[in-house]
Amino acid sequence: MIQNMVDMEQVWSEHKTLLSEVEAEIRRELRSEVELVNKVAQYIIDSGGKRIRPLLLIISAHLCDGVNKKFINMGGSIVEFIHTATLLHDDVIDNAEIRRGISPARVLWGNQASILVGDYLYTLALSLTVKIDKLEINNLLANTCLRMAEGEMLQLNHNNNLHLSEETYLQIIEYKTASLISTSCLFGAIIADAPEVEKEALRSYGKNLGIAFQVADDTLDYIADDDRLGKSLGEDLKEGKITLPLIHLLQHCNDSERIWLEKLISGDDFLPDDLTKVIDLMIAYGSTDYALKRAQSFSDTAKRDLNSFGDSQHRQALTAIADYVVQRDH
Amino acid sequence: MIQNMVDMEQVWSEHKTLLSEVEAEIRRELRSEVELVNKVAQYIIDSGGKRIRPLLLIISAHLCDGVNKKFINMGGSIVEFIHTATLLHDDVIDNAEIRRGISPARVLWGNQASILVGDYLYTLALSLTVKIDKLEINNLLANTCLRMAEGEMLQLNHNNNLHLSEETYLQIIEYKTASLISTSCLFGAIIADAPEVEKEALRSYGKNLGIAFQVADDTLDYIADDDRLGKSLGEDLKEGKITLPLIHLLQHCNDSERIWLEKLISGDDFLPDDLTKVIDLMIAYGSTDYALKRAQSFSDTAKRDLNSFGDSQHRQALTAIADYVVQRDH
Repeated sequence: MIQNMVDMEQVWSEHKTLLSEVEAEIRRELRSEVELVNKVAQYIIDSGGKRIRPLLLIISAHLCDGVNKKFINMGGSIVEFIHTATLLHDDVIDNAEIRRGISPARVLWGNQASILVGDYLYTLALSLTVKIDKLEINNLLANTCLRMAEGEMLQLNHNNNLHLSEETYLQIIEYKTASLISTSCLFGAIIADAPEVEKEALRSYGKNLGIAFQVADDTLDYIADDDRLGKSLGEDLKEGKITLPLIHLLQHCNDSERIWLEKLISGDDFLPDDLTKVIDLMIAYGSTDYALKRAQSFSDTAKRDLNSFGDSQHRQALTAIADYVVQRDH
Repeated sequence: MIQNMVDMEQVWSEHKTLLSEVEAEIRRELRSEVELVNKVAQYIIDSGGKRIRPLLLIISAHLCDGVNKKFINMGGSIVEFIHTATLLHDDVIDNAEIRRGISPARVLWGNQASILVGDYLYTLALSLTVKIDKLEINNLLANTCLRMAEGEMLQLNHNNNLHLSEETYLQIIEYKTASLISTSCLFGAIIADAPEVEKEALRSYGKNLGIAFQVADDTLDYIADDDRLGKSLGEDLKEGKITLPLIHLLQHCNDSERIWLEKLISGDDFLPDDLTKVIDLMIAYGSTDYALKRAQSFSDTAKRDLNSFGDSQHRQALTAIADYVVQRDH
């Protein structure tokens, strides 16, 4: 494996100009005659996202020697619009009171507006793919949106399921999170007219990167600083979302601890002390360490997926991103 | 204008076989590996819809001499999937407790599942349009979904707006309802490779038909029998939706009645007697009659839109549908 020579700060800084062009395209495309649509959409788009998906698309296209700026800007807008649509709907589904440290759209404009602007942005994204006029991209994006909705439904179906396996958990996060990240990379390769082997390498890189990101994120829900997370700890536990640290804990704790956990998860009462006790157990049984190691292992696989590419600035950037997503303070 | 020789019963019966083929296609396309997605989607699809949009697509295609069965079945599924997606999201937005006389999906599976399966069906519809591989259809369907979301947002924006004009009201219902009905007709014409003049005639017919339908539906919300409506009367009033009978009443009642109405609409308290009083006022001021006449006038325009077609079984069927949507007992 090639040693990583760049860090994430450098990656952001090197792609600042290209990302700002995507940003301009996003603004250009948000031109509904219903002003409230633009307002709600722009609010959520502006609310602190790092544009990791457009960044992956840009770097993937460049790695495959594709520099069609028009398509890159459109592609970057498309993946960000889809991501934004899922955020709007997720906030309604999770009854979120805070997102990235600020009020989510549903708190400011209500659930109705969040659902409708989400629908608008999904459709806007798919209408933009039509403009690129490549059947492969139309199919890819439509299938990705289907996958994401399936992943969320699967997660809903397994809410409070104390017997959720690691395998099914991984399937859920692959569908709900990794599919769009993988598609962002593959999208870049398709724009660049890359050969199949490069498209497959980037698709796989994106999938493993996305899984690494979500496993790390789910673990941070238990062990991050509140300030860095932009929301309070233990949200997943409160919502009955069973994630990897908890799956590990349930598999390794003793019977009386398991009975207590099961009562806690299936019940409605939830005291701050309960969360502290869960986190203490996770640390004692190595559950958060285990989850972070699994995240690291998917990140390593993502980096290995790039082996078919020679060393380059772009490959190093993708490697830096794979390191970044499993850092505890992202 | 040609005298209508067929009634709606005949239209349904003549197209029973073709509609059942669309039905079979809908079932074939609902094959998510997440069983809950299929279950929720099939429930709402089965819950009593009349398949008016697939019917319009079938008849429009035949009127333009297009008989590509594969595309007709796919097209019929696409418009019905989009319609179903909007129903799922509308029920969440309206907090609906009943739909067509039965429990809506949100009551049985929760708001979350309704939002996600709605997302799934929107995307499924747009992914199927990709298979038809006609740029015109991809654009049409994506633009229609954008329009529908805009219409719903516009409606939300004007909730409780006592100064809503008839013009803006008509724009809202054109966007939220008539756009998909219009698109169903135009879709049929495009599948049939119809000349521009026929496509335009059917697009306009569908638009006027859709407006007629929604104005009639909004009026029935005040004057239908509960049993026929499949929900309780006065729902729009309770939700702060300002529709044509109320717009007319607000423009024609005296000052003390207007003050009372304004208090009622902007307040939260709502007694059964209040609804009776509103309906009595609407009847006294001719507001429901006015709205039904407006619906009839759009229905008449829709029928005139068909003048460029010679007399035929298919044209008579579309004329029968235009009569049907403004009947008080549909």
